[in-house]
Amino acid sequence: MPAYKAPLDDIRFLLHDVHDIGQLAALPGFEDATPEMIDEVLAGGATFCEEVLFPINQSGDAEGVHFDRGEVRTPAGFKEAYARYAADGWTAVAADANYGGQGLPEMTRFVMEELLCSANLSFSMYPGLSHGAYSALISHGSEELKQRFLPKLIDGSWGGTMCLTEAHAGTDLGIITTKAVPAADGTYAITGQKIFISAGEHDLTENIVHLVLARLPDAPSGTKGISLFLVPKFLPTADGGVGARNAVTCGSVEHKMGIKASATCVLDFDNATGWMVGEAHKGMRAMFVMMNSARLAVGLQGLGLSEVAYQNALAYAKERLQGRSLTGPKNAGGVADPILVHPDVRKGLLRIKALNEGMRSLAYAVGIRIDLEHRHPDAAVRQDAEDMVQLMTPVIKAFLTDKGFDNTNIALQTLGGHGYIKEYGIEQYVRDARIAQIYEGTNAVQALDLVGRKLPMEGGRLVRRFFELVKADVDAAASVDGLEDAAKALGGSLYQLQKATMLLAERGFANPDEAGAAATEYLHLMGYVAVGWQWLRMATVAGAKLAAGTGDRRFLEAKLKTARFYFARVLPETGTLLAAIQSGAAPIMAFDAAEF
Amino acid sequence: MPAYKAPLDDIRFLLHDVHDIGQLAALPGFEDATPEMIDEVLAGGATFCEEVLFPINQSGDAEGVHFDRGEVRTPAGFKEAYARYAADGWTAVAADANYGGQGLPEMTRFVMEELLCSANLSFSMYPGLSHGAYSALISHGSEELKQRFLPKLIDGSWGGTMCLTEAHAGTDLGIITTKAVPAADGTYAITGQKIFISAGEHDLTENIVHLVLARLPDAPSGTKGISLFLVPKFLPTADGGVGARNAVTCGSVEHKMGIKASATCVLDFDNATGWMVGEAHKGMRAMFVMMNSARLAVGLQGLGLSEVAYQNALAYAKERLQGRSLTGPKNAGGVADPILVHPDVRKGLLRIKALNEGMRSLAYAVGIRIDLEHRHPDAAVRQDAEDMVQLMTPVIKAFLTDKGFDNTNIALQTLGGHGYIKEYGIEQYVRDARIAQIYEGTNAVQALDLVGRKLPMEGGRLVRRFFELVKADVDAAASVDGLEDAAKALGGSLYQLQKATMLLAERGFANPDEAGAAATEYLHLMGYVAVGWQWLRMATVAGAKLAAGTGDRRFLEAKLKTARFYFARVLPETGTLLAAIQSGAAPIMAFDAAEF
Repeated sequence: MPAYKAPLDDIRFLLHDVHDIGQLAALPGFEDATPEMIDEVLAGGATFCEEVLFPINQSGDAEGVHFDRGEVRTPAGFKEAYARYAADGWTAVAADANYGGQGLPEMTRFVMEELLCSANLSFSMYPGLSHGAYSALISHGSEELKQRFLPKLIDGSWGGTMCLTEAHAGTDLGIITTKAVPAADGTYAITGQKIFISAGEHDLTENIVHLVLARLPDAPSGTKGISLFLVPKFLPTADGGVGARNAVTCGSVEHKMGIKASATCVLDFDNATGWMVGEAHKGMRAMFVMMNSARLAVGLQGLGLSEVAYQNALAYAKERLQGRSLTGPKNAGGVADPILVHPDVRKGLLRIKALNEGMRSLAYAVGIRIDLEHRHPDAAVRQDAEDMVQLMTPVIKAFLTDKGFDNTNIALQTLGGHGYIKEYGIEQYVRDARIAQIYEGTNAVQALDLVGRKLPMEGGRLVRRFFELVKADVDAAASVDGLEDAAKALGGSLYQLQKATMLLAERGFANPDEAGAAATEYLHLMGYVAVGWQWLRMATVAGAKLAAGTGDRRFLEAKLKTARFYFARVLPETGTLLAAIQSGAAPIMAFDAAEF
Repeated sequence: MPAYKAPLDDIRFLLHDVHDIGQLAALPGFEDATPEMIDEVLAGGATFCEEVLFPINQSGDAEGVHFDRGEVRTPAGFKEAYARYAADGWTAVAADANYGGQGLPEMTRFVMEELLCSANLSFSMYPGLSHGAYSALISHGSEELKQRFLPKLIDGSWGGTMCLTEAHAGTDLGIITTKAVPAADGTYAITGQKIFISAGEHDLTENIVHLVLARLPDAPSGTKGISLFLVPKFLPTADGGVGARNAVTCGSVEHKMGIKASATCVLDFDNATGWMVGEAHKGMRAMFVMMNSARLAVGLQGLGLSEVAYQNALAYAKERLQGRSLTGPKNAGGVADPILVHPDVRKGLLRIKALNEGMRSLAYAVGIRIDLEHRHPDAAVRQDAEDMVQLMTPVIKAFLTDKGFDNTNIALQTLGGHGYIKEYGIEQYVRDARIAQIYEGTNAVQALDLVGRKLPMEGGRLVRRFFELVKADVDAAASVDGLEDAAKALGGSLYQLQKATMLLAERGFANPDEAGAAATEYLHLMGYVAVGWQWLRMATVAGAKLAAGTGDRRFLEAKLKTARFYFARVLPETGTLLAAIQSGAAPIMAFDAAEF
């Protein structure tokens, strides 16, 4: 019953007109990655998501994964879809050509990520985790490990996982107890239990490469005593085939609110054979490579579900006849008007639309900088790109998933009672979206990362640069006909964000609880400003194209109207966030535990 | 795994100290309803909810209802629990003594409603719908119908339903097509299909009394041509027993996001025998009696789920050890501190707590006025009470369910990944809470009721009176030591509400879309002010008791701290709501359908 079309018009507007995707082909090694080529790749990806992955999304939710004595079977159609996903090269798209990848810009995979999540979040988890394992291995693995495992991860015949959490240790990885004991042959014997392991066991690939955090016998306590190990489900043979079963078993799978077709496993390691990835006791560093990539991907999950929920709510609002417009019938021949005439229905849909399009643009602003960071010949450009990626990673993760979840709920509400029943598919998006606020570091952890690590980093260079970029666009737009109000609104919210930043610097220094009490609101304040920044850029581009008479007039006018809606209806929420930050920690910390 | 304790301390504080429940025993017919007696009844109700209903809540969700060829079987334990519920007199508690009820104040049932919903929302739907049918029948049924059906609804041996929605007609009841054709014997033959009928078929009672909206052959179109009919599943025999099966059958049950143990039925009426309730073509009026009572009850559902979610999130936050306080270890002997030390965790829990306690007090302010409206000897008091009930019904329904849903999500987030799995029970509260924002009129419909009907009613008398009451408490508190800040904050938000009210009156008169565009924000603005009003009252009472040295010091101090939190952290959201209202309808209405 639900439907999905990849928003290619919007994607192309962003890639070509707003973010100048053409600059990628100028980077060394990306000579073939012309805008036309990237368009073509994404068009193929869109078709795959629409025609292969989306049709098994609702059935996958209803069926869930099957667990039987250590084996996990994915729902009907997943195995065939994955085989095609790998055969079509999607596991290899942005991977290193030295190990069999296609070597396309990371941006390609980044854009594709949203489409995968719109179409089938549960499915996307399997290759998503493999990509996390790939990232850690390519940046921290020895050449021998890379040669042995990367080609298999890249061609998709083997999958990967990230094994971090233990029953007593989730956010606090410093207290994990899984042990790694060195063996004479240079391998390690891994023993312990990991929980909440996505893609920990399944039937999609012939082998699974687990990346496991564990402690060496001489490890200091805390996060400085954690090392990273590669522990395959089956030990590889000398010729790269699948050898003996390793001592890692799936004890059970979780019964969850959503992403039911994604296997969330308890994994038991019982003297399993592993290889160290990177240096001893430096596992957290290697883990953060996976984690940062995963955090951005989770942000795109929020966007992807918000997009598919929007499309279905909009279709319903255009078709469902109920009541009359308050200003007189708009469908006089019918029994009632389509509910899209009602201001409250419009307002909800426009909120989703304005957030989605703005969040997508913000994600692309970050995505393109990942490639610049890796490839640009000018070190200053690389550093500048890296700064923005670092600053925005927690914002992308938390803001896009918080708004994504809210948006799926607005979409559900648009359908009334039909939104609450399984048939229409929307309630699944709500349940699926809910996890994205939690995993890869809860959104509160993201906020602490932003406030506690990213703001003070390099003496505040990252955030000052962000302010400069926004300010420059505000100043430029202030004198552009039709953009004065938008520039004024964004300038005002930017000022609020700067004020909050000063406040945090002052108070947080004296009392860290002040930073903790303000962190979530601060992240949201920055998210609204960052999305507003993107809307100002999009409006500037749309206005210029309209003036020049190029492009689709209706499309560009809709962009200007949506920008206006964002600045009038959404951005003013920054005021409340600043007020909350200003109210400080005292009203929160005053309670002792018995007073709750 | 989850747990529930009825918050009797809070309930007693509100009943005795804030809302003077003693005034009820002074009303004619309520002489026996002393505060002690009401306390005793509620203590029994609390035990029943904790020990009988709560233990079958999670299992009921997992099992769901079973549908087989027209028959619905409720999950394990529901039948026995319902039998005890009826035997213990809970179906009769506030029902009319002339038909076998216990004749206690409506307030008793009102308070109990929250406890039922905390313990087992799905279960509460069955007697809840029976109560809706009771309400319509007692106010609009003929004496003959009352004599025949009320005793059975009151002793709980028969259940009831409200059959309004049709597949094409939900919010817009004016377009329903179910037909009622008069028969020679004074009955009517009812034909049509109703959907989304809660408790439409089940195995808890020996008969089900459907109250059905339908059209007579000569009915004018629209809502002025709708009549209400009583259509029992089994026709009653002359001696009040269960006779022949009537031509109403359950065609299927819905598969829903939540309230899975509540049967949501498609009912097919095929020349079923019915009796008219009230006058021809005046069915909407009778229906609104059920509806208003149901709307208040749905508000209490939001509160009930928020309360049980809070209790479980708090217990987790006190036990779960993870990370260290930002200001140094608080549990130096353990591997980590309880997560309750973290400002973000506290802030989330305090937000739930402050909203719950404030919303409960607001609900009681309305609940006690229902009895005053019905029983007070002074017509002016009755009118004044009715005004407040009318004004606040949409606020209670929408604000309590919107905040209730948000709160269950904050509670889920507190548990991190454990919140997302079924074992801990919290994700069920989120799924169950989601429906309350939809049924009995979506929350957007509540907002239109508030803005379009309640504000202009009696030349604005209802809302002016509300402003007077809040203003009087603000003025009184302004000079009370320790309450100055609270009074100032509430006074400021009250001013914003008054400003929004003026704006709506001006703009909405000129263009109804302006009212439509502002309605939801206006309802929330009023909700925050109304809950703030209750916090000011509670703080005033707590301060006075502390000064007098009466009552539990820790309990009263926690009330003052929670009030402070509400005014510092929650109430400032009114600023954003006013800004949204001020931005007007133009940015919303500017889009044509193709531009979405």
